[in-house]
Amino acid sequence: MASIISDCTERFRQKLFGKTGGISEKTLQMHLGLYAIQVRRAKELLSALEKGDSPKENQIDGSLFRARKLDLSYCLSAAKSHELYFSILGGAGGAPQGTLREWIDRDFGSFDSFLRDLRTTALASESWAWTCLDQASGRLLNLLGDGSVTVPFWGAAPLLAIDMEDHAFILDFGWDRAAYLDSVLAQIDWESVARFLPLV
Amino acid sequence: MASIISDCTERFRQKLFGKTGGISEKTLQMHLGLYAIQVRRAKELLSALEKGDSPKENQIDGSLFRARKLDLSYCLSAAKSHELYFSILGGAGGAPQGTLREWIDRDFGSFDSFLRDLRTTALASESWAWTCLDQASGRLLNLLGDGSVTVPFWGAAPLLAIDMEDHAFILDFGWDRAAYLDSVLAQIDWESVARFLPLV
Amino acid sequence: MASIISDCTERFRQKLFGKTGGISEKTLQMHLGLYAIQVRRAKELLSALEKGDSPKENQIDGSLFRARKLDLSYCLSAAKSHELYFSILGGAGGAPQGTLREWIDRDFGSFDSFLRDLRTTALASESWAWTCLDQASGRLLNLLGDGSVTVPFWGAAPLLAIDMEDHAFILDFGWDRAAYLDSVLAQIDWESVARFLPLV
Amino acid sequence: MASIISDCTERFRQKLFGKTGGISEKTLQMHLGLYAIQVRRAKELLSALEKGDSPKENQIDGSLFRARKLDLSYCLSAAKSHELYFSILGGAGGAPQGTLREWIDRDFGSFDSFLRDLRTTALASESWAWTCLDQASGRLLNLLGDGSVTVPFWGAAPLLAIDMEDHAFILDFGWDRAAYLDSVLAQIDWESVARFLPLV
Repeated sequence: MASIISDCTERFRQKLFGKTGGISEKTLQMHLGLYAIQVRRAKELLSALEKGDSPKENQIDGSLFRARKLDLSYCLSAAKSHELYFSILGGAGGAPQGTLREWIDRDFGSFDSFLRDLRTTALASESWAWTCLDQASGRLLNLLGDGSVTVPFWGAAPLLAIDMEDHAFILDFGWDRAAYLDSVLAQIDWESVARFLPLV
Repeated sequence: MASIISDCTERFRQKLFGKTGGISEKTLQMHLGLYAIQVRRAKELLSALEKGDSPKENQIDGSLFRARKLDLSYCLSAAKSHELYFSILGGAGGAPQGTLREWIDRDFGSFDSFLRDLRTTALASESWAWTCLDQASGRLLNLLGDGSVTVPFWGAAPLLAIDMEDHAFILDFGWDRAAYLDSVLAQIDWESVARFLPLV
Repeated sequence: MASIISDCTERFRQKLFGKTGGISEKTLQMHLGLYAIQVRRAKELLSALEKGDSPKENQIDGSLFRARKLDLSYCLSAAKSHELYFSILGGAGGAPQGTLREWIDRDFGSFDSFLRDLRTTALASESWAWTCLDQASGRLLNLLGDGSVTVPFWGAAPLLAIDMEDHAFILDFGWDRAAYLDSVLAQIDWESVARFLPLV
Repeated sequence: MASIISDCTERFRQKLFGKTGGISEKTLQMHLGLYAIQVRRAKELLSALEKGDSPKENQIDGSLFRARKLDLSYCLSAAKSHELYFSILGGAGGAPQGTLREWIDRDFGSFDSFLRDLRTTALASESWAWTCLDQASGRLLNLLGDGSVTVPFWGAAPLLAIDMEDHAFILDFGWDRAAYLDSVLAQIDWESVARFLPLV
């Protein structure tokens, strides 16, 4: 049976090295290193929780079981957002075609409006910005994470993730987050983004 | 086109009144009132964001656009968790049958282990406890929310939600959260829970 | 040597019972019960941390030491906010005199402006609203807590705390938070508030 | 009258440049740049809130006033932690003498135990670690921040702050947070730390 998370560092390394203009190999290397830690930690937490001994260990202060479950959510969310970010980098930028473009036009009025909203969303975030599909209604939304939102809402599926944490840009762009964002938007692989749409 | 959220207060009122042993009508009434506020607020935020004027308003302190997007995530998550909670209350308790039972046995060892894990998870939470399905791997997990987790992780779909916020139990059980939880577990409608499984 | 926290439940019970118009004895009873749990838990966490064995226990997943330290901050903050809230309830309301009034007038323009700001602050909060003194500059500010703010900022000293969590009002006022707030403001003991000012 | 926050960038630049072994000038430059943004933003928020027009602007969705107040707490806390961190860097390391050493020995058993606790606390944090003085009891504690704790508890006064956010170490140490922490501990100016103790 498939496991909940597995380490795709090598695949992303081969896909991305030499193809992320503006984002240096040193940044990518560190980024992949952080992702690998999040995957390993999620696996350790899953394994510790499966042993089922937590509630007993925990009689004194009730902290460990709770902390493990919350940390697991955090590590899985962060690792999966990293996987999506690595999946959509290294492309040719421009604009999407086909169904994705139609849905963007339908829900944002135009691709330019969508980009403006995505940029503002990303610059307002200190963790992640995502383009999400609400699976129940089929609508697209740009939303952001912060301390209190690791995943925006039940039923949201992410199509596109932009990492706005310090480590994503600081080596290459200092605090110029807008320049980093330009660089990301100029290399989005829209065909990869479209692959996360449900078949219609 | 379907909207992202719509108000189901009336449907839940008719489904639940007179059928939630231990949980009083006064509590249900207040609970449905809070849910209706969350739905209304999510709609207002979606509408304010769709007008697209936020970025400009926002020049001085950058707070409003960000706050609206985060509040939207919060309201949608809370409203959808409430909908799930109302959907699975008012049943006969006991234990599930069929595929759901097989998957529980597979992922937790036994229904008793699953219940023990769910109870511990719920008692460790001050907001929500959920049984989630990881859509990618097909595995079940019990996880909890708190300030930093409104939804556990990308790709999780909720099958069962238990509200552990003060307003869910304080009128009927005071601080006896364990008694409230017993009452919820004794009235879970397992057929409704099973309906959230993907068809296999 | 004084301990960091001690249980003042009995003192508050004697001070408040029969003197909190609008806030019932049942609510007070539950409120004091929650406070006693927070004090006990803070003491247990201090004791567990003092044994100094945490880092070793923690080799597998790094969660327990971190969770205990964060939980300690949370319990101390919540217990101390409760102590302040219980200290300023049960009075005659009205308006403060003397230095406190002068500082309010200086920093908010008038007592009415202060009250308006405090009301709006409290209604925007789902946990606490406080009037704080910035110890370095001597200025007063009304601020609020939420998931990401248990105490507003370094150097702030609280003069007045208003509990806006569900358990503070739901038994007596349902969701009518404004009516609860009116009841609190009508019974603030301004002399107790003034006692938290530094001597000048 | 003193303002709640003022920009000390120039003072810290002159104090620290050339004196922070292991922490590069490029890192310091970026660090001071971030601090200057936090101070400016806190001042803008104070000014926007003082105009008193927030509640009215806010009728539609209740978000702006709340967001400004929470952002203000966040910016003040972050700026004040940065000021403390800059104040205690660039020294000779070693161990403190006098009252500070006595209090450390009293509350942690020995300076080595204190250092071990401080190291574990810092490595468990993704934002800040602090040595705090509980003003009411006179006891010292090492605590950490995260999304839900910007300041540990009411009445805590910080003596020492260590920045554990990515931008503090990533340029100079990559993900080797332990090496960064060694570098900080080797350059703590213990006389500056002791200056934050109350006179006894």
